[in-house]
Amino acid sequence: MKAALWYNRKDVRIEETKDPIISSDIVKVKVKWCGICGSDLHEYLAGPILIPVEHPHPLSKTTAPVILGHEFSGEVVEIGENVKNIKVGDRVVGEPMVVCGKCPACLEGKYNLCWSVGAYGICGTGGGFAEYASLPERFIHKIPNELPFDKAALVEPITVGMHSIDRANFKIGETALVLGAGPIGLGTIECLKAAGASFVACLQRKSVRQEYAKNAGADIILDPNEVDIPSTIKKLTGGKGVDAVFETTGAESCFLAGLNSLKSDGTLVVTSIWEDSIKLNPNLFVFTEKKIVGTMGYRNNYPSTISLMGNGKIKADGWITKKIHLDDLVKEGFEILAGIEKKKHIKILVTPDKNLL
Amino acid sequence: MKAALWYNRKDVRIEETKDPIISSDIVKVKVKWCGICGSDLHEYLAGPILIPVEHPHPLSKTTAPVILGHEFSGEVVEIGENVKNIKVGDRVVGEPMVVCGKCPACLEGKYNLCWSVGAYGICGTGGGFAEYASLPERFIHKIPNELPFDKAALVEPITVGMHSIDRANFKIGETALVLGAGPIGLGTIECLKAAGASFVACLQRKSVRQEYAKNAGADIILDPNEVDIPSTIKKLTGGKGVDAVFETTGAESCFLAGLNSLKSDGTLVVTSIWEDSIKLNPNLFVFTEKKIVGTMGYRNNYPSTISLMGNGKIKADGWITKKIHLDDLVKEGFEILAGIEKKKHIKILVTPDKNLL
Repeated sequence: MKAALWYNRKDVRIEETKDPIISSDIVKVKVKWCGICGSDLHEYLAGPILIPVEHPHPLSKTTAPVILGHEFSGEVVEIGENVKNIKVGDRVVGEPMVVCGKCPACLEGKYNLCWSVGAYGICGTGGGFAEYASLPERFIHKIPNELPFDKAALVEPITVGMHSIDRANFKIGETALVLGAGPIGLGTIECLKAAGASFVACLQRKSVRQEYAKNAGADIILDPNEVDIPSTIKKLTGGKGVDAVFETTGAESCFLAGLNSLKSDGTLVVTSIWEDSIKLNPNLFVFTEKKIVGTMGYRNNYPSTISLMGNGKIKADGWITKKIHLDDLVKEGFEILAGIEKKKHIKILVTPDKNLL
Repeated sequence: MKAALWYNRKDVRIEETKDPIISSDIVKVKVKWCGICGSDLHEYLAGPILIPVEHPHPLSKTTAPVILGHEFSGEVVEIGENVKNIKVGDRVVGEPMVVCGKCPACLEGKYNLCWSVGAYGICGTGGGFAEYASLPERFIHKIPNELPFDKAALVEPITVGMHSIDRANFKIGETALVLGAGPIGLGTIECLKAAGASFVACLQRKSVRQEYAKNAGADIILDPNEVDIPSTIKKLTGGKGVDAVFETTGAESCFLAGLNSLKSDGTLVVTSIWEDSIKLNPNLFVFTEKKIVGTMGYRNNYPSTISLMGNGKIKADGWITKKIHLDDLVKEGFEILAGIEKKKHIKILVTPDKNLL
């Protein structure tokens, strides 16, 4: 089959490789669409970050070259002999998890915190930028007919938002501030509105992303170059601050603005990955009993996202800003997302099937 | 009456002042014992910190001199006309809160986060280093006969530990690490054991406080000068780390050692007040979905502490390391706690009544 293989930084090749081998509980999927994620781009521009190069990944037992891509939808074409609830022809999405199933975190059901965790499409067990992808039945989820294959490729990034509002213990009627309107920020906004948030503000500097945030359902967009975020949020919430803040930017100034925009006993959920340490005075959360909570991917949230996208409670309208063929992944995908037009794009979708374009 | 009045840094005077005026829902207490808290000492050595000097406190409407002391027990001698459930002669402790009752935090029942919060014994409405103290009925709690007046003066600092394990959402059978074995650390250890903790470790450098921690119920004491805390904790917990860490030291190195000693999805509760910012890489809690939670004083926890101290589940044995008369507060209290013997003391109790010594 044809697939995109990461050999090295700035060296991703579209070439022939072996089809996934199917046995036991493995499901083989003919890929329809696979979205480009920031982590794919980072591996292309600055990798290896998570890709195993010197030492084989403990679960995949392999090193680069590895197939990239983890936000995929498709149709089941083959199943292993122990697969029970998925059949050939099913419309599905893959939950790109590679886990050991044996460590204390896995045994507690917190498989996203697996001690050996690998990401499908990064660690070497296959990926979605290919004609075929494969995962254990546990991580293959059926999608309803109302959810087209292209939108279904958005389930993965939106589920990151779903899990983060779960981590915030967010309740109907509460208020929120989302820091940043990239794909994770936008997904979080859509999930918050679906969760019954009474007010969602979004911090986003001037760019087309302000429009995207509005389209996703944000009630107000605040530019930190134009207003002081904490005092503006307090004005908008009767002096209190919001119940929850979602940090998706990875910037110290946003982290602190978010913390200071919370009400007493409110929760700052941090989704972003950090390049550097930040300077933080703990008194900022001690005197006011605030909570800071890390979130990493998702666990057990795929069915909720699929259901809410299927019935239209989460629309993700306007997310797909470009569709390209697998052959053009580097030139029309990675290079575009690394260039001056990057802020314009929410999701570029990739297909190995010329008939879909 | 006689009372200890804070006039200025290093200027606390024992002198005659007016008795508290009793009306409405106010209860007047003849003080038996009042413990010296670290915050009293800080006001003496380095104040004004919370004491109003230039601007009157919004609730007390007054400035220094103010009566100090907030960890007190005593007997009710007079009640206002609206007091319903407290009568003259009752044995009680005071919950030293001065709150507005009208702000959003108060209206949500989170009165420790009151927007105007004042501390009784600091903000100018009276204090426990006096012959008489007074608080609204709401903040006066009856104590059982099994709880002697001297131990009852320990209810306040132990309730800080009670609230902090509530903030951790700590459950029976879980494991914990307490950073520091000062009074708050010791109180937290006793509360954790009463809460059914299966394992409690304590970080404490070599001093008599290691003995105090053991006496409070810690299963093991770890000296950060002797062992690496995170790897030792992981060895002691089957590789996982503890469910909850309680930070009472105010030191960056302890904060980080604590965070790194947590299991995935574990909770770091921060009780300590900070003089400086710390350097923190959020990845330390993002990848492993850890939680960092601020805690401030207590709310609604007094009855639990009183009950558990009354029935002996929380013993606080050996806590009272010295008893002195109010006249000697500065020389035998503050100056001792500021000197070379400070680590030896857990609690110095003060009484205005010579007959109790």
